[in-house]
Amino acid sequence: MTAGAVDLTVQLVDIESVSRNEQAIADAVETALSAYDHLTVSRHGHTVVARTSLGRPERVVIAGHLDTVPVNDNLPARLDGELLHGLGTCDMKGGDAVILRLAATVPEPNRDVTFILYEAEEIDSEFNGLNRLSQSDPGLMAADFAILMEPSNAEVEAGCQGTLRAEVRATGERAHSARAWKGVNAIHQAAPILDRLTAYEPRRPVIDGLEYHEGLNAVGIRGGVAGNVLPDECVVEVNYRFAPDRSEDEAQRFVREFFSGYEVAIVDSAPGALPGLDLPAARAFITAVGREVNPKFGWTDVARFTALGIPAVNFGPGDPMFAHKQDEHVPVEHIERCEAQLREWLS
Amino acid sequence: MTAGAVDLTVQLVDIESVSRNEQAIADAVETALSAYDHLTVSRHGHTVVARTSLGRPERVVIAGHLDTVPVNDNLPARLDGELLHGLGTCDMKGGDAVILRLAATVPEPNRDVTFILYEAEEIDSEFNGLNRLSQSDPGLMAADFAILMEPSNAEVEAGCQGTLRAEVRATGERAHSARAWKGVNAIHQAAPILDRLTAYEPRRPVIDGLEYHEGLNAVGIRGGVAGNVLPDECVVEVNYRFAPDRSEDEAQRFVREFFSGYEVAIVDSAPGALPGLDLPAARAFITAVGREVNPKFGWTDVARFTALGIPAVNFGPGDPMFAHKQDEHVPVEHIERCEAQLREWLS
Repeated sequence: MTAGAVDLTVQLVDIESVSRNEQAIADAVETALSAYDHLTVSRHGHTVVARTSLGRPERVVIAGHLDTVPVNDNLPARLDGELLHGLGTCDMKGGDAVILRLAATVPEPNRDVTFILYEAEEIDSEFNGLNRLSQSDPGLMAADFAILMEPSNAEVEAGCQGTLRAEVRATGERAHSARAWKGVNAIHQAAPILDRLTAYEPRRPVIDGLEYHEGLNAVGIRGGVAGNVLPDECVVEVNYRFAPDRSEDEAQRFVREFFSGYEVAIVDSAPGALPGLDLPAARAFITAVGREVNPKFGWTDVARFTALGIPAVNFGPGDPMFAHKQDEHVPVEHIERCEAQLREWLS
Repeated sequence: MTAGAVDLTVQLVDIESVSRNEQAIADAVETALSAYDHLTVSRHGHTVVARTSLGRPERVVIAGHLDTVPVNDNLPARLDGELLHGLGTCDMKGGDAVILRLAATVPEPNRDVTFILYEAEEIDSEFNGLNRLSQSDPGLMAADFAILMEPSNAEVEAGCQGTLRAEVRATGERAHSARAWKGVNAIHQAAPILDRLTAYEPRRPVIDGLEYHEGLNAVGIRGGVAGNVLPDECVVEVNYRFAPDRSEDEAQRFVREFFSGYEVAIVDSAPGALPGLDLPAARAFITAVGREVNPKFGWTDVARFTALGIPAVNFGPGDPMFAHKQDEHVPVEHIERCEAQLREWLS
């Protein structure tokens, strides 16, 4: 914790923490934060909460998730000039490092702070550490404003798109593949599902001056019984990212209509969040940071705070375009700028 | 073994023996055959061989496989009037039961007989018990003629189609599904693979008066990294069944051209067998059995005997249309007829 935020990012990246495997990193974070008397630290699964209690009139949550998507031959961390490369550098251990630095080195912030470093953001929302915390200990989520340090080019990103996952199922009838004309091949029946996905044209609505960009993608496909059997089932898992002018219900209806003629099962869903740029707490933060505001394409837990009635924005190091890509990286300058601006805002 | 062939079929069906899980059924068969002094029994993996050694001028192989495709809620065996239902009744424990009955009850056949009950016919040929036996103990395969008791409506089926399996690979570039325009979705890239399969028109060549019927089918599909990641790979496993006028090389070339633009890897291949109706041993058997001759659509180990220079035909109970289907069944009359005709031919 005596290292700078960039060195700290390297340390966090080199603790592999693919979703559902966050024990080691949560242990390290909990141990590090527990050394500071000005913080009250608590552990909830593999989510760590550290709070100041200075009786300030305002409280802010600053949060980041500890997990990453699966390893893709991109560990350990590697510093190359002005860029730090490796899984999680961008999404979002650079932001986590800033959180740890602020928690350790700003003992008397001008507003009380609840730092939250949480598990399982990259998978089903039922596992999400922030979701679980809001159910088990809602008092720890209470705040006047929330900053999520998701990668946003060290600029403020407002709102976020919703996300839902659905299983689209094609069915058939098994038969020996030597006499295929006696069965119905479910994988062949799935061809129109992929054709519709290929022809899909995304909506790009403008909301509060920010242009969003939807997406509808297959993220998984499976089918097959044996090497000589026509399969009777083929399942395409799709992920729909929808702009925040569309509710979860509207999004589900769109997906069901898009794949009409097929069985559609919604397996996971989270609403978007409108930008909320008219809320005073958001306005004040944007003025203090003094940067441009952009739309957030990815779903983030900003939506969870919005649902709790807490204004929230994304503000973190890294270009989100490189999140989940093999060549994920974060500019060193982003980490330093986010830390400096938040330090100034808290001082 | 003192039961009739139908009861014996029920007993064999009720010993679950999905490929790679044939130990129990092979143990039972080996123990049963070892009780007969007129047979020399040997075990090779989960393949059992029982031979007469009467010094006859001619030797015939009569063979059947002991494994089945995966269970599909179709066990145990169930007799319903004239039909015996259940996994393996048709493909091919009805035939196996006939083999066991003949082995036990015809101690002095007019030609020496090598009975072979073998493992792993329904999966990759590297596991095939007959293939392994031909490598480890080729002498046990030697014969003047071979009868494979694969389901063929208790009629003679000549020749068989070849089969090959190939993996057809679509590639892309991973990206976060919230910013899909920054990646390339490999599952969407696979849409034309399924479109080509859907548009496929099978060849139906006539050979020695028998009409064959080819088939090209997806038997598996897989792709996906995580629920919020555009996958960079989608693999379609296809199975091509080709008429015996096409060599393995020609079949592979056809598949590579059919999927041009995609990476194609051949993972398994077995040649077809021409009908061979002009060979004296085949003619003699057909004359003795005195039934119509049909083409064999499915690949069977007839091709393996053909490759060894041994004339071979399929002749077994059950309609092959019901092989690998949930409602698999065999007519009791087929079992009885096959047993009676072979008993007469051996006596």
